[in-house]
Amino acid sequence: MGKHGIILFGHGARDPRWAEPFERLAAKLRSLRGDPVALAFLELMTPDLPAAVAAQAADGCDAITVVPVFFGQGGHVRRDLPQVIDTCRAAHPGVVIHCATAVGEDDGVLDAVARYCLTQV
Amino acid sequence: MGKHGIILFGHGARDPRWAEPFERLAAKLRSLRGDPVALAFLELMTPDLPAAVAAQAADGCDAITVVPVFFGQGGHVRRDLPQVIDTCRAAHPGVVIHCATAVGEDDGVLDAVARYCLTQV
Repeated sequence: MGKHGIILFGHGARDPRWAEPFERLAAKLRSLRGDPVALAFLELMTPDLPAAVAAQAADGCDAITVVPVFFGQGGHVRRDLPQVIDTCRAAHPGVVIHCATAVGEDDGVLDAVARYCLTQV
Repeated sequence: MGKHGIILFGHGARDPRWAEPFERLAAKLRSLRGDPVALAFLELMTPDLPAAVAAQAADGCDAITVVPVFFGQGGHVRRDLPQVIDTCRAAHPGVVIHCATAVGEDDGVLDAVARYCLTQV
């Protein structure tokens, strides 16, 4: 049985410090599971999603879950991401690629953000 | 003693559905406190931050905490937001305006995102 990879998909930015929370998130997940965890970006940072999927496929993943690390689901998540996922599926027909709902839709995440906000007032 | 407002500051997007998690977050916070909670956006959505600050000032807030609802701190949070905050402070010298660190820097938020990711594999 192959591995099940997780790819944390973010927007990307010019400032390299922008990626720090994504790197901390990946480190947290790696401490919680043995299978691969990687980052991928829509633009301005590397790797892009096709490169990250190719790397996990080469690493023995036969299933990959892409998690959009976005609060809102706008054009990037609803329109751009499905197109990239389709490209990845066509390139790796032996890998089952699942795309999760954006993390900002999760009630537990919003509860944690609300708790943080209350510590700031 | 005046009220202490919270303004949840997001990027904004063309798709109105993008704002749904922000609206849910504001509703959660309103259920947890009596003082005003509002949304504001950098671009593409209204109100912008100066309009949201003016509304809370008119509503009797003498302190406002702006929380950037961003994962990464790139140019929008490090460069654009402080300039807008300065503009707001100049327009409302009687209101103490505090700007929090972006929510993605909070460990509790990242833990919640990690838990969500694990439910998806």
